[in-house]
Amino acid sequence: MNYTVDINSDVGEGFGAYEIGSDNEIIKCVTSINIACGWHGGDPAIMDKTVKSAKERGVAVGAHPGYPDLIGFGRRALAITPNDAKNYVLYQTGALAAFAAANGTELRHVKLHGAFYNKACVDEALASGVLDAMEILNAARFANSRVFLMALSGSYITREAKRRGIPVCEEVFADRGYNPDGTLVDRRSDGAFIRDADEAAKRVIKMIKEQKVIAIDGSEIFIKADSICVHGDNPQAVDFAVKIRRELDRAEIRVEPFRYE
Amino acid sequence: MNYTVDINSDVGEGFGAYEIGSDNEIIKCVTSINIACGWHGGDPAIMDKTVKSAKERGVAVGAHPGYPDLIGFGRRALAITPNDAKNYVLYQTGALAAFAAANGTELRHVKLHGAFYNKACVDEALASGVLDAMEILNAARFANSRVFLMALSGSYITREAKRRGIPVCEEVFADRGYNPDGTLVDRRSDGAFIRDADEAAKRVIKMIKEQKVIAIDGSEIFIKADSICVHGDNPQAVDFAVKIRRELDRAEIRVEPFRYE
Amino acid sequence: MNYTVDINSDVGEGFGAYEIGSDNEIIKCVTSINIACGWHGGDPAIMDKTVKSAKERGVAVGAHPGYPDLIGFGRRALAITPNDAKNYVLYQTGALAAFAAANGTELRHVKLHGAFYNKACVDEALASGVLDAMEILNAARFANSRVFLMALSGSYITREAKRRGIPVCEEVFADRGYNPDGTLVDRRSDGAFIRDADEAAKRVIKMIKEQKVIAIDGSEIFIKADSICVHGDNPQAVDFAVKIRRELDRAEIRVEPFRYE
Amino acid sequence: MNYTVDINSDVGEGFGAYEIGSDNEIIKCVTSINIACGWHGGDPAIMDKTVKSAKERGVAVGAHPGYPDLIGFGRRALAITPNDAKNYVLYQTGALAAFAAANGTELRHVKLHGAFYNKACVDEALASGVLDAMEILNAARFANSRVFLMALSGSYITREAKRRGIPVCEEVFADRGYNPDGTLVDRRSDGAFIRDADEAAKRVIKMIKEQKVIAIDGSEIFIKADSICVHGDNPQAVDFAVKIRRELDRAEIRVEPFRYE
Repeated sequence: MNYTVDINSDVGEGFGAYEIGSDNEIIKCVTSINIACGWHGGDPAIMDKTVKSAKERGVAVGAHPGYPDLIGFGRRALAITPNDAKNYVLYQTGALAAFAAANGTELRHVKLHGAFYNKACVDEALASGVLDAMEILNAARFANSRVFLMALSGSYITREAKRRGIPVCEEVFADRGYNPDGTLVDRRSDGAFIRDADEAAKRVIKMIKEQKVIAIDGSEIFIKADSICVHGDNPQAVDFAVKIRRELDRAEIRVEPFRYE
Repeated sequence: MNYTVDINSDVGEGFGAYEIGSDNEIIKCVTSINIACGWHGGDPAIMDKTVKSAKERGVAVGAHPGYPDLIGFGRRALAITPNDAKNYVLYQTGALAAFAAANGTELRHVKLHGAFYNKACVDEALASGVLDAMEILNAARFANSRVFLMALSGSYITREAKRRGIPVCEEVFADRGYNPDGTLVDRRSDGAFIRDADEAAKRVIKMIKEQKVIAIDGSEIFIKADSICVHGDNPQAVDFAVKIRRELDRAEIRVEPFRYE
Repeated sequence: MNYTVDINSDVGEGFGAYEIGSDNEIIKCVTSINIACGWHGGDPAIMDKTVKSAKERGVAVGAHPGYPDLIGFGRRALAITPNDAKNYVLYQTGALAAFAAANGTELRHVKLHGAFYNKACVDEALASGVLDAMEILNAARFANSRVFLMALSGSYITREAKRRGIPVCEEVFADRGYNPDGTLVDRRSDGAFIRDADEAAKRVIKMIKEQKVIAIDGSEIFIKADSICVHGDNPQAVDFAVKIRRELDRAEIRVEPFRYE
Repeated sequence: MNYTVDINSDVGEGFGAYEIGSDNEIIKCVTSINIACGWHGGDPAIMDKTVKSAKERGVAVGAHPGYPDLIGFGRRALAITPNDAKNYVLYQTGALAAFAAANGTELRHVKLHGAFYNKACVDEALASGVLDAMEILNAARFANSRVFLMALSGSYITREAKRRGIPVCEEVFADRGYNPDGTLVDRRSDGAFIRDADEAAKRVIKMIKEQKVIAIDGSEIFIKADSICVHGDNPQAVDFAVKIRRELDRAEIRVEPFRYE
């Protein structure tokens, strides 16, 4: 049997004179990138440069919309309405789509950022606004292709997206522990992080080949791994990602951009 | 002989809780609108609402990119590079294009705002960055049509756009005086403004039928009037626009969205 | 017996080219104003102009810090830390204090805006950060006087401020209904608003003279009315405020800036 | 004879999640710091932290106001009015003063940032607005001391400040070449930078002891060196600053915060 998986990372989150993350390094070991769109991070020059770099490396490009909270890097809960959610996704995705077109590549997906991502995974009203935006983009054939939503594997928003016929890519985290219900272990709790790259690699290989992960309580739960999220915010994170990628190769899991069939 | 002309106005320049301009009134007497894209004014909700309103009335939609200077409403000179200019136009136009797609209408044109507009009309380097963006949008068929640039009639940027094969719409001002060289009389000088709507109407009718306008020194100069810019920032401005429109009808000049042949 | 009360209103909430509220009208019928500090609204020019106007009319000046959310006008819940709260109050109050000094008047108080106000009234952690800022300002004698916090009468933050020895001014709302526990009736519920100015005036007079208000369920509850908040966001709101003020005069309640003894 | 000089550096220019510059390193070898105030860089948390760090090390604190252009890091010319200049300085200085008070230290000076600094050095109208702000701050005794302006040695604004009786500190650049008229050699020209720390040290020692510098054409010109500006934007810059400081010690020039007599 042939196995394939996508690896994605958040990039292009600098702003003006500010650099953040090891974009040049992380982009070498992923197949999809989620590009900040100027709200929680990113600016037009960085968006253009990042898309160009992705195009040169054959890496798939997605929009990474965040809350309008640069000072909080989009990581703080903000009470936006479902209609705001829809419009914020449209605005930021539209902006990125222009740079995709400019660089002769396609906008392939949308992945929310930070607090927007977290809340939309579980909040029905907010998810509804986001999915409205996805439907609108696809109905209008805005990006000349079926744009898919990348979201937390098994989350409410992925289920609802499927129910509404919206293409979805379910992502897993190599470096995070899972609760028995499939949610991520809270960052402040024991077992939140998998620090050892070898262990992390074994876990993701199991996710891909068996569609299973060992939860924090030792139980084995179902998980779908269309894409693995890796981080590039420091040299250690890049090393970790490089090792995961190497082990996937060894396990004969083909790493390639996710394609919605 | 049949005469036609477009009438355009800048709209959608509110932001969040802030309203500005008489959008609902002015939109009734124009055939094209230039919609702020969130930088000097405008926000995603207002962009969506404004495009929807345009769609309902059959008014053509364009992007109205400005400098990233909300506190200065985009009216202050800002030393951006040609590459910034290109990227700022792409970003803002892309964002608006998503709302055009969402509302089932087309993005037809781009008209710069305020200090960006003024400088790009005369500055070769800045104009070059703007025109690069226009070429990119059209080469990529980003908005599924030939997007044209709306700019000051007779200005450097319109000539250069034509030379580069970029569609262009030359706009004139009903309420402004012209210098013998075709530039606008400085706002602080005598003769800068035509306050009387009847006189203004006569002037624009002459521009359309004879391609001529009487300059401030009494000389008659050549002018091309593809579109007439009217303002909606106060009730008087709307009255003025209504009168111009009525006189155009009386003069049997058909008022319709500009189409680049 | 002599009765006195302060009347306050939120002003200076425009931004750049955007105007909002009837500042010139409302300022005539209040004794204290809360001036936006550039985050949810307000900008340096408007802050300067508003302080100057207050100085000329003998109206007391306070800072009105909000969340960094201009697009949401500071009305949306934002998950800031207590330390953020402290720093955000210091920053905005410091900025306003410079304009108070520039115009030869004193910064008298701090009143939070919108979602910041609402949450700090009830959230212990957030209130703690805000009160830390108040203590710091007063310990440093930053504004050369005892700066007081203006907050919802009977709320957690007012009790905690008193416990910590921080000067506090308890404000009531003329146009709002009260629950039996002293909180405001939710804006979406019946009885949320008192639309009749005469009724509203009777209610505030009762609050001042008897320290009582009739709650939504008909029960009479204790309330302390150091200041009455009135709105100036539309002509009706100003009329309402004018009527309240007139009735207070008739009831021989002296209207003057709140002074912490 | 006893010689003294101040060494200053721009710090606290990060924003939210973004770090920039080697603040912790550079602060060890300077006697004054200019702290960004949230507009071109800096945020309330960083301002608080930076002032606290300065206080602990006995380093003098100044405000470093910039244009409202975070995306351009305040380095781009922006056409603000003299009145804007006055208000922008008051706002940002006021904000920083609150953190100075909070940390039990004094706001000692104001040094403009980037394009604001450059233009105010030479533009009479802009300089006038800035000096108005300085006069206002001192007349109001806003920061409880005589706040001085730190500006380019020999520039228009320093002369005008003196003429108006505003305290001023003239700064020189250890790593920059000078034109015969005392202005800095343009960054794009030969001789713009002094890359060798030993040579730079010799030059500043000559500036301090002889009030002279060798200009780009070999001529010896007058220069007043109240403070030496050093950079901390990369490890090399910090090394350079450390060496300058060491050579000043060897030359028995006392390095201490500038004091206006």
